[in-house]
Amino acid sequence: MFEKHPYSILVSQYLQERSFPSTPAYLYDPIRYILSLGGKRIRPMLVLMSARLFGKEDLNDVLPASCAIEYFHNFSLLHDDIMDKAPLRRGQPTVHMQWNDNVAILSGDALLVKAYEELANSPAGKIPSLLRVFNQVALEVCEGQQMDMDFENQDAVSEAAYLNMIKLKTSVLLGGALKMGAILANASEEQQQLIYDFGVNLGIAFQLQDDFLDVYGDPSSFGKQVGGDILCDKKTILRIKTEELATGALRESFENLIGTVALSDEVKVAEMKKLYGLLAVDEYSTQLKEQYMQLAYNKLSSIDVAEQNKAELFALADMLMNRAK
Amino acid sequence: MFEKHPYSILVSQYLQERSFPSTPAYLYDPIRYILSLGGKRIRPMLVLMSARLFGKEDLNDVLPASCAIEYFHNFSLLHDDIMDKAPLRRGQPTVHMQWNDNVAILSGDALLVKAYEELANSPAGKIPSLLRVFNQVALEVCEGQQMDMDFENQDAVSEAAYLNMIKLKTSVLLGGALKMGAILANASEEQQQLIYDFGVNLGIAFQLQDDFLDVYGDPSSFGKQVGGDILCDKKTILRIKTEELATGALRESFENLIGTVALSDEVKVAEMKKLYGLLAVDEYSTQLKEQYMQLAYNKLSSIDVAEQNKAELFALADMLMNRAK
Repeated sequence: MFEKHPYSILVSQYLQERSFPSTPAYLYDPIRYILSLGGKRIRPMLVLMSARLFGKEDLNDVLPASCAIEYFHNFSLLHDDIMDKAPLRRGQPTVHMQWNDNVAILSGDALLVKAYEELANSPAGKIPSLLRVFNQVALEVCEGQQMDMDFENQDAVSEAAYLNMIKLKTSVLLGGALKMGAILANASEEQQQLIYDFGVNLGIAFQLQDDFLDVYGDPSSFGKQVGGDILCDKKTILRIKTEELATGALRESFENLIGTVALSDEVKVAEMKKLYGLLAVDEYSTQLKEQYMQLAYNKLSSIDVAEQNKAELFALADMLMNRAK
Repeated sequence: MFEKHPYSILVSQYLQERSFPSTPAYLYDPIRYILSLGGKRIRPMLVLMSARLFGKEDLNDVLPASCAIEYFHNFSLLHDDIMDKAPLRRGQPTVHMQWNDNVAILSGDALLVKAYEELANSPAGKIPSLLRVFNQVALEVCEGQQMDMDFENQDAVSEAAYLNMIKLKTSVLLGGALKMGAILANASEEQQQLIYDFGVNLGIAFQLQDDFLDVYGDPSSFGKQVGGDILCDKKTILRIKTEELATGALRESFENLIGTVALSDEVKVAEMKKLYGLLAVDEYSTQLKEQYMQLAYNKLSSIDVAEQNKAELFALADMLMNRAK
């Protein structure tokens, strides 16, 4: 999708030039492994795009921070996969499956430190403010992951709590990546905040869309089992809204569907989709997504640079939101 | 031992003034818990002592880095305890026992980020060089922990490999703490290196002494089961040297003792101690410890400040090495 984008190539080159010691092998092999699994490298690209948006010419100053963001993202995947007992990541065995939990814990720790090592390769005068943004985002991502795990054991989760969780777990990292690019380009604090808000709102919209596509997406292009979230009783925006709205007979149907093992997968997904339709939570989630998209676009529009400089970020946002022509 | 030292009081006050959010409780409660278990706070004191050694007057500039070192130390204990399946830490249940592995992984991650957050509260001009030292130490501690785990599955471990492992796993953090104090006091790179080397060599001597005391210490003052390392077949300097030197009948005795469950604890410890005596590895390890002590003292002696300023660090080293009068 973005593999041929010039910034994607820059990021990939920079990542490939990094090398890790050969020993201890159980510490560094898993890091090489997870980085080799690829991914779209959206987050590091955001750092570069934001720096360029605010007029930064020399992207060599920006690549270390961009790499730090990608390392952090991979660190969080590595540890989340242990906690979620995930067997696969990007179609390959997760690190804790390929090796073991201890290896995944410690190599994750080392990768987080490597992220800070990259950050420290940024221009010295920028390091204090980059470090502050990076730390805040990193802590919020931990908070979001804890909330996500807490939700699994909670009876009901409110829409507000859910939106806050996805903001922390996934969106602030997009905002932080963009803000770091802005800092490196000497943007004012006001402008830094606008591009941060663009990223956070875009991230929330993206996650809401992800929830929607899990149920209504085209399985051939979405790349996951359709209805997977329904089958594992995941508390998505669709389910949370259903729980909030369902009363009477619909409430009873909903309660019966949750946690049931008496139905086939197909029937459980179909029944839940029927409920979603009756309560119009599919439309509700689409509208909510659109609101966050609009918020994001408004923030980007408000940024005080020439309009043509924003085209790249608008295009990226459109592609992420499947609006590409 | 050091609780009434003025620097210990400064460190404790600073740590107590830090506060963590109340939620998510499973993220921050374990951090409050592990920090409340206490410990001697030697590492943060080293940052302050080194800064004062090099003439730093205002220790408020130094406390954030000192706190970062203590947070990092507790982060590493938290994750190491998961990996080692340790049930107790300072006489209390470890975090992964009190809560669970996931909580221990994620709260450890958050505590590592908090360490960097403290570091970022240092004087801005010092942050880039502090960050570089901190990152290097943090990565080396991860390497040391991985080597330690690797050794459990290796047949033979060389003395050199062992010394390198304890250097990375425990000693570089002492060296790094001292170096950070030196940086904050504007010491030259040469002086930074001397105080770093003092800490690393002191740390190695301390670990060698720890191996010795596990077998020969006074159980009432050492606070651990005597012979615990022998009973769990831990590869200490004593065992590594025995494996290197034992031949013929002694070799046979050694091989029979390792991993045996046929003997009572008392007999296994007594038999191994007999071997240690016959091969004089007890004396060897004491001499080796003395060499590292001497190296450490030489480094401190070489530092270019008034001799009376060094008294505090010499006294701390003496106390750590049980040489206090």
